[in-house]
Amino acid sequence: MNDVAAAAGVSQATVSMVLNGTRSGRVSAATAQRVLDAAKDLGFRTNVHAKVLREGKSRMIGLIGDEVATTEFAGEMILGAQQEAWRQGYVLLTVDTAGDPGLEKAAISMMQSYRVAGVIYAAMYHRKVEVPATLAGIPTVCVNSQDASGSLTSIFPDEVAGGRDAARILLDAGHRRIAMINIAPEGSPLPAATGRLQGFTDALADAGLLLDPRQLRYGDGAYEDGLTFGAELLSRSDRPTAIFCGNDRTALGTYHAAHLLGLSVPDDVSIVGFDNQSLLIPMFSPRLTTFQLPLVEMGRLAVAEVLSGSSTPKRLAVDCTLHSRDSVALAKVPA
Amino acid sequence: MNDVAAAAGVSQATVSMVLNGTRSGRVSAATAQRVLDAAKDLGFRTNVHAKVLREGKSRMIGLIGDEVATTEFAGEMILGAQQEAWRQGYVLLTVDTAGDPGLEKAAISMMQSYRVAGVIYAAMYHRKVEVPATLAGIPTVCVNSQDASGSLTSIFPDEVAGGRDAARILLDAGHRRIAMINIAPEGSPLPAATGRLQGFTDALADAGLLLDPRQLRYGDGAYEDGLTFGAELLSRSDRPTAIFCGNDRTALGTYHAAHLLGLSVPDDVSIVGFDNQSLLIPMFSPRLTTFQLPLVEMGRLAVAEVLSGSSTPKRLAVDCTLHSRDSVALAKVPA
Repeated sequence: MNDVAAAAGVSQATVSMVLNGTRSGRVSAATAQRVLDAAKDLGFRTNVHAKVLREGKSRMIGLIGDEVATTEFAGEMILGAQQEAWRQGYVLLTVDTAGDPGLEKAAISMMQSYRVAGVIYAAMYHRKVEVPATLAGIPTVCVNSQDASGSLTSIFPDEVAGGRDAARILLDAGHRRIAMINIAPEGSPLPAATGRLQGFTDALADAGLLLDPRQLRYGDGAYEDGLTFGAELLSRSDRPTAIFCGNDRTALGTYHAAHLLGLSVPDDVSIVGFDNQSLLIPMFSPRLTTFQLPLVEMGRLAVAEVLSGSSTPKRLAVDCTLHSRDSVALAKVPA
Repeated sequence: MNDVAAAAGVSQATVSMVLNGTRSGRVSAATAQRVLDAAKDLGFRTNVHAKVLREGKSRMIGLIGDEVATTEFAGEMILGAQQEAWRQGYVLLTVDTAGDPGLEKAAISMMQSYRVAGVIYAAMYHRKVEVPATLAGIPTVCVNSQDASGSLTSIFPDEVAGGRDAARILLDAGHRRIAMINIAPEGSPLPAATGRLQGFTDALADAGLLLDPRQLRYGDGAYEDGLTFGAELLSRSDRPTAIFCGNDRTALGTYHAAHLLGLSVPDDVSIVGFDNQSLLIPMFSPRLTTFQLPLVEMGRLAVAEVLSGSSTPKRLAVDCTLHSRDSVALAKVPA
């Protein structure tokens, strides 16, 4: 700081005020600019740790994620969180706990010792979570997850709206015999499965249709479910003219099942997927109509919420985005 | 610290020595334990920022990654880096630059202000990188990438060994007419493409075989390359009895091309892939023999190297792991 003061021809106190952003009216804009230029020329860099001690709080936000390494959804959520953090002058301290409670505990302890301004508690697939009690006292927001206790703000995809929109696309195209292959076993509490099914059923009901139990299959979101259940559904005499697949992997299996049966997508069967997974999308021929999870947006919102200072817990369901492509055709009118 | 001292019945100076690990011979082990117990009971937590100022260095390592959000390889590399960092008492400060040079510059500046002990410069696909000059002065290691200047330690997959091993598996099964679908256009410097091709060609040469140019195709690693080039290669009268696909996406396309031509994998054509991509592997029937990139291991090694204190640049090529499954069969002996 001495060097900066000498180069700018001002006192060290002035340099300190300018670099700490506390100059108020006491330093002219021209002088402040001279100080900043000199600091830049000299490669002066604040020691953030000193700043944290002075101000009593850090410009870091902790992000605790389970299984970040093994999911394709983590990156975009973290990117969204990073974008909003940086926009507000914060950095992210991210820990992948790989689902290990011991590591999670250590991560929270570490974040406390770094005096993080808040914590984003991120699940890599949407579900209810029990947030560790040790996080009490730090502003915490759940993302892609729902806080089981209801005491924290939770941000998650609007699965119900997604399921409803999927059904509406098919209903609007004139389909009436519509099947669904769900992505979790019956009775599973997975919100992506229960929510999408509920929205789907609701939209059918709004159109005066009851979901025929024979047209509903429960899998676990695997490609093979599409192959197996797709073949079962499409081999029946009352085969559906459209299938809502709870995710893209299942949709790809269903495409292949249709192909093996000599049926054409979308002429013989319309298909809607969910997830818009970048690695899979190029493999669909014709191109798949599907929904994108609001990953970047949820990450952004989580940071905005954790920094908002609000202590009233909210439940924010964020819309999924429709990618309308070529896998839905108008239902054929019986001759 | 006052509370800890009172609870343990010792002076504040003693508490300070114990908690900072500077007690040397002046405090008995029993007293030290009493202080630690009291600190634990009281939920005492070091303020890391004060510790950094006292010691002049931080226990943070910066990890700068390009396009983390859009690749399925990032998570495991970051997990490996995190594991080694935590093992040595460090935390990771990760920034996804999304390939934006401005953001990269800001990330470096941020990491300098946090006084990081070192920086891991990670590419999300293996290539040569120009490391920003602003990183000079901070121990830096390139991972999944090769420093173009040669002045930094670089850690990357051994692509040549991978290509050689792929060819050997097929040669050992008796194949002689072996094709390859590469994952970058001819002349591209992408090490994953040039290295795998070189190893492949070398192994054929070792077996006295010259790679027939008609059996080599250049794509860009897409599923469609497998469909197109696979169909081309397998429609020829001198069709190969085995194909080495430069990645799993291409291998999946090649499977489908074989299927469309009524050919069976591996009875009519053996196929070897590369990457062992978890999202794709369940879609291969029969199961694909392929190689796994050493992502976790490279992340671990990068942190170990950056903390090693060594200033001699190394080039560490890390082996890929073979997953031997069901897509390779013995070559048929002509009747």
